[in-house]
Amino acid sequence: SDILVKNQSELESAIKTVKPGDAIVMANGDWRNIEILLETNGTAKSPITLRAQQKGKVTISGESNLRIAGNYLNVEGLVFKNGNSPTSEIIAFRKDSKKLAYNSRLTEVVIDNFNGPERNNVEAWVVLFGRNNRVDHCQFINKRNQGVTLTVRLDTDESAENKHQIDHNYFGYRQNLGSNGGETLRIGTSHNSMKNSQSIVEYNYFDKCNGEHEIISNKSNQNTYRFNTFFECKGTLTMRHGNETWVEGNVLIGNGVAFTGGIRVINEKQTVINNYCEGLTGNRFRGALTIMNGVPNSPLNRYVSVKESNVTNNTFVDCTHIELGAGNDKERSESPQTSTIKNNLFYSNGSPQHFGVYADLSGISFENNVVNKTTTFPSKTGFKVEDVKLNTLPNGTKCAKGIGAEIKEAVASKENTGVKWYSKNTESTEKANIIKAQPGLNTLFDAVKNSKSGDIIELTDGEYNHTKVIHLSHPITVRGTKGSIVTFETNNLFVIENEGGLRLVNLTIDGKISNDSPLNAVITTSKYSMNKNYNLFVDNCTVKNLTANNFFNFFKVATSTFADTVSITNSSFSKISGDVLALNKEGDEIGIYNAETIIIDNCDFTDIEGAAIIFYRGGSDESTTAGYMTINHSEFKNVGLGKKNASKAALDLVGLQNLDIKNSIFEKSSAIKMLLTVGEPKAEVHHNVFNQSSDFEIKGEGFSEKENSKNIASNTKVMGDDKLSIGRK
Amino acid sequence: SDILVKNQSELESAIKTVKPGDAIVMANGDWRNIEILLETNGTAKSPITLRAQQKGKVTISGESNLRIAGNYLNVEGLVFKNGNSPTSEIIAFRKDSKKLAYNSRLTEVVIDNFNGPERNNVEAWVVLFGRNNRVDHCQFINKRNQGVTLTVRLDTDESAENKHQIDHNYFGYRQNLGSNGGETLRIGTSHNSMKNSQSIVEYNYFDKCNGEHEIISNKSNQNTYRFNTFFECKGTLTMRHGNETWVEGNVLIGNGVAFTGGIRVINEKQTVINNYCEGLTGNRFRGALTIMNGVPNSPLNRYVSVKESNVTNNTFVDCTHIELGAGNDKERSESPQTSTIKNNLFYSNGSPQHFGVYADLSGISFENNVVNKTTTFPSKTGFKVEDVKLNTLPNGTKCAKGIGAEIKEAVASKENTGVKWYSKNTESTEKANIIKAQPGLNTLFDAVKNSKSGDIIELTDGEYNHTKVIHLSHPITVRGTKGSIVTFETNNLFVIENEGGLRLVNLTIDGKISNDSPLNAVITTSKYSMNKNYNLFVDNCTVKNLTANNFFNFFKVATSTFADTVSITNSSFSKISGDVLALNKEGDEIGIYNAETIIIDNCDFTDIEGAAIIFYRGGSDESTTAGYMTINHSEFKNVGLGKKNASKAALDLVGLQNLDIKNSIFEKSSAIKMLLTVGEPKAEVHHNVFNQSSDFEIKGEGFSEKENSKNIASNTKVMGDDKLSIGRK
Ligand SMILES: [Ca+2]
Ligand SMILES: [Ca+2]
Repeated sequence: SDILVKNQSELESAIKTVKPGDAIVMANGDWRNIEILLETNGTAKSPITLRAQQKGKVTISGESNLRIAGNYLNVEGLVFKNGNSPTSEIIAFRKDSKKLAYNSRLTEVVIDNFNGPERNNVEAWVVLFGRNNRVDHCQFINKRNQGVTLTVRLDTDESAENKHQIDHNYFGYRQNLGSNGGETLRIGTSHNSMKNSQSIVEYNYFDKCNGEHEIISNKSNQNTYRFNTFFECKGTLTMRHGNETWVEGNVLIGNGVAFTGGIRVINEKQTVINNYCEGLTGNRFRGALTIMNGVPNSPLNRYVSVKESNVTNNTFVDCTHIELGAGNDKERSESPQTSTIKNNLFYSNGSPQHFGVYADLSGISFENNVVNKTTTFPSKTGFKVEDVKLNTLPNGTKCAKGIGAEIKEAVASKENTGVKWYSKNTESTEKANIIKAQPGLNTLFDAVKNSKSGDIIELTDGEYNHTKVIHLSHPITVRGTKGSIVTFETNNLFVIENEGGLRLVNLTIDGKISNDSPLNAVITTSKYSMNKNYNLFVDNCTVKNLTANNFFNFFKVATSTFADTVSITNSSFSKISGDVLALNKEGDEIGIYNAETIIIDNCDFTDIEGAAIIFYRGGSDESTTAGYMTINHSEFKNVGLGKKNASKAALDLVGLQNLDIKNSIFEKSSAIKMLLTVGEPKAEVHHNVFNQSSDFEIKGEGFSEKENSKNIASNTKVMGDDKLSIGRK
Repeated sequence: SDILVKNQSELESAIKTVKPGDAIVMANGDWRNIEILLETNGTAKSPITLRAQQKGKVTISGESNLRIAGNYLNVEGLVFKNGNSPTSEIIAFRKDSKKLAYNSRLTEVVIDNFNGPERNNVEAWVVLFGRNNRVDHCQFINKRNQGVTLTVRLDTDESAENKHQIDHNYFGYRQNLGSNGGETLRIGTSHNSMKNSQSIVEYNYFDKCNGEHEIISNKSNQNTYRFNTFFECKGTLTMRHGNETWVEGNVLIGNGVAFTGGIRVINEKQTVINNYCEGLTGNRFRGALTIMNGVPNSPLNRYVSVKESNVTNNTFVDCTHIELGAGNDKERSESPQTSTIKNNLFYSNGSPQHFGVYADLSGISFENNVVNKTTTFPSKTGFKVEDVKLNTLPNGTKCAKGIGAEIKEAVASKENTGVKWYSKNTESTEKANIIKAQPGLNTLFDAVKNSKSGDIIELTDGEYNHTKVIHLSHPITVRGTKGSIVTFETNNLFVIENEGGLRLVNLTIDGKISNDSPLNAVITTSKYSMNKNYNLFVDNCTVKNLTANNFFNFFKVATSTFADTVSITNSSFSKISGDVLALNKEGDEIGIYNAETIIIDNCDFTDIEGAAIIFYRGGSDESTTAGYMTINHSEFKNVGLGKKNASKAALDLVGLQNLDIKNSIFEKSSAIKMLLTVGEPKAEVHHNVFNQSSDFEIKGEGFSEKENSKNIASNTKVMGDDKLSIGRK
């Protein structure tokens, strides 16, 4: 029978007395700060259920979590939001390491942004232990901090050969974590990767799961991934450890979005069959198909070589990179062996198709693969060019007759996964307002205080002075005239707090009356952890006289913060005693960094005692895209020569993976320092003018310099690669 | 007449309509989130007063501050507590840079722990602008973050020759800031230091104002400091900039407390007369009397040479250091000139009296100074030894006939300064309880949750497992038997939050079941700023198996945190993949650091892949004592050799000022690295045994090594400087 419970003590009593076949019904409403331990036993015929009175009307908030321990237990219809778990798991299929769950089910449960504030604390949302458990029709959105969204653990023998089923779940938006630990689904750990798991993952929808390289990280034997859809995910289904994985009938749609990836093969006896990939753009470890090189006699936590694996009857439409023998280096020196790539279709509507060959591929048998346009093949045999006709199936995938994939099954979609009664949207759709602020004391502060997400604050000509720091807990735009002068007596003008963001347009920012403090910066991030990524845009601004102290920065980040984009365009920076962009606060050598995309376009930097940009990403982690910086049509004059400039550089860049400096002028400045580290960094410096004695100090590989002009008269006109004059446009 | 106001709008209306001679009376109660602008004008005969209905019964809390602008305005009887200012000033004698206060008075106002959360944000409590203002009988206690407690600013001509009076105030406890910016009182800035200020600071009591080197930082001309009492202050009255300072009749009592200082002379035409110093122990810049060397043609922000200055008729009783020509270096190369030191008494009851001579003193005329015990004098003439008799005056100071000081005036005391109606105590006096916790899941977590400040949690034999992190917001002790085993699945076991502290006694801490996370540490500080200093004591504990991840630390601090003491005694650490003590998170090169006193006594460290201790203090600031580390009778075996040990050292110590490593064994470990920086660091390494190839890597000066034994058979018995065997006792 149904037992309606209205509070924690009723719930706890009910759990003590519930009988097989009963349902404990949690009353509609918000259950705050509740740790539920559903420890009891149903039977196969008469399970015990814990459910919401009405699906979606029971929310679990505050410091809360759920543990399921015992046999034949079902949990249905709860929503976890507005809180976080006091432990590192929200929903665990165990009480503790000894008491696990079996034959139990989590269904139609929603977890939405139930994250602790610490970006780099490891928290898992759903953790499966025991055997024969099922997670289905659940909806997981806005995971923001470290730790896998859903994971199967095989810590003890009680969790081996578990045959869990994970199906029809909606794995929603997961932001770029900028670190390892951003997997959406993981089965096993390296330590337990030689155990058989036998989990089935099917009919799930992965929607922009962008945490890191691995959307799925398979780390045990005999798992099946089938009929899942991956929509614009910046990562891959990775067979990281473990053998005998079956990957069938998945649909991976990239839509040409950068860094979208496909299927990555490592280890032995892997099967990749009848999968459909379209519009995937990722390369290297994010290729549409990546076959890795391995480590001879690999330890459990490194790379077992590919053997006895087959990639058969898959279709790749407009996928730009197929990577074979990827990651070949001193350690990963063993090429794929005794494997086949057969009956696959590589189809292009015009986009390039690169077959990257990084190792000896004689261990792969290529057979009867078809390409519709000529390209450079990785093998002399096993490829032919044919004028293939594609038909679009009712489920949206395309197929050709007799070659590649044909997805007959229903395809997992945003509509047929997760729950019907909870939104899958994560973006606000409110309309922005314009708020006008007059010159005076703290008027911009007051305007921001009265703003809401996305609002635009408009300034007129005149001086805006501040004795208060402007904290931004939602994104705003501040837009002035060129006569809008913003000054501040405080250490900082703006602090971007968690959930905040900033766009500055047409302003003059003058540090002339600022406090003399070593912490001065016009803009900082929160000094606390920000679990949400932010953006900073500065356009058509003038920043000057940041000299009240020796260490006056323009923008300075704190640890545990991450910018999707920092973009500085059409702006001038002059007389600055510190750094312009200090993006270097992750000192732990574990591959964490502070900003993904950094754009400097049409800017000038003059009389900067510190560096124009400091970027730091330490360690040798390979889980992230790790920084993408472009500097174009900009001018650096007398930059980086101050005595207190610890970096001793105009640009000090450690661990960036992608760097393009072009069409710019460097004059009487300190050198550009780069430390090119792990992976395959690309640092291109071209079509610049260097009028200074010291140009570069480079360590590591991946640097290319071309068509730079050195020590030429400053009135000499030099053209950039875009036919415009070098320097500001 | 009196105008009683009960809320913000009544207060604001009253300010608009108030007439000379009126008093605006704030109703008793808590005024939360209120920014008061008292902008109006009284007259000399009829001032306008803003006062509490009853003194001490009106509190200002939350995000609040007070500005006074206009003429003849008085503020009386308010208490600022439980909040902080939304600007960087709590009470300012101005509206903005144009509208200042004149002839106004702040009296019997209390500010107690009204600090923002950010330790390193610069906030001033009371800022005087304008002219002829008075701050008297106020009470300022528990200033915790950066920024001066009370300051006089001379930014514009309207604030010059200001003749402010600061008297009978109680400047209460100010903790060691561990950074520059911890001054209690400052008059002027280097930029304005050649302006005449003419402020008078008299009859104030400074009680343990330990923020930094400068209790008082004089930075303008013609100020007077007289009849103040400095009680156990770890700093000095410093004539940092500006000339014609008059320092008379002050009483400085050190009571033998470490780092207590006296009067420091820099610049020209300074007068130090009839002051009484007793029991001051500081040296170098904290001598009982320090005369600095100067910089030839010094810029405003450096050191102007001492000229035409007189130190006359002062008494020093049991003060250990008189420092003459202090700070002499390449830059500060100019010795004192045309100055006299005359009629002073240096009296010892047996404690040593060092006259430190750091430069040519021929520019100082020494005349008729008296010493009661023979010592090494700084000059051949001008000193004589006499058997002086001291008489104790009713005010507690001592004097001798015809020599030194005689303090006739009333002496400022804890009783006759500040207010009568608010406590001057800052320590809790509540009695500690003992809370017993049984073995099991999260039982220690639960016990801590139910504890209060100072409580002792007692564990029995057995395993205490944790899936929750224990956050400490008040100090506690956890005391076990040796059979109390504490384990944790989380990244951290303890987090010391602001106002927290931890003492661990008789525990075994085992990392065997901890999460695999790069952020693992048994204990961390808050990841947020802590504005209060904390302590960590570990005694008789065993810590092992911190190996779940490559970077598993025992204790790891965050930026903007500061430990008064980290003490590890009688404990064993083994199998640790990271560092034992990671005290290195202040990466900005501005002299900030993370811990003052670090004690390792009778401990062993075995198989530690990271460093045993990392300490970092960057930059060249000289405002702090900057780290005091002792390592005694400890053993380091296989420490610091892990591949991921970024420090490549067993001990990696940057910028420590005092280091004593003795009676210890270093075996098969990485080297001890030291970077000895600014000031006069002392690093002594003596009576140790080194059984390893690499002993030290030292940069900088101040290192001394003696009586260490190298590469001897491990069964050879070597005795320490205390006659005990080297190694653990
Ligand atoms: Ca990963
Ligand atoms: Ca100072």
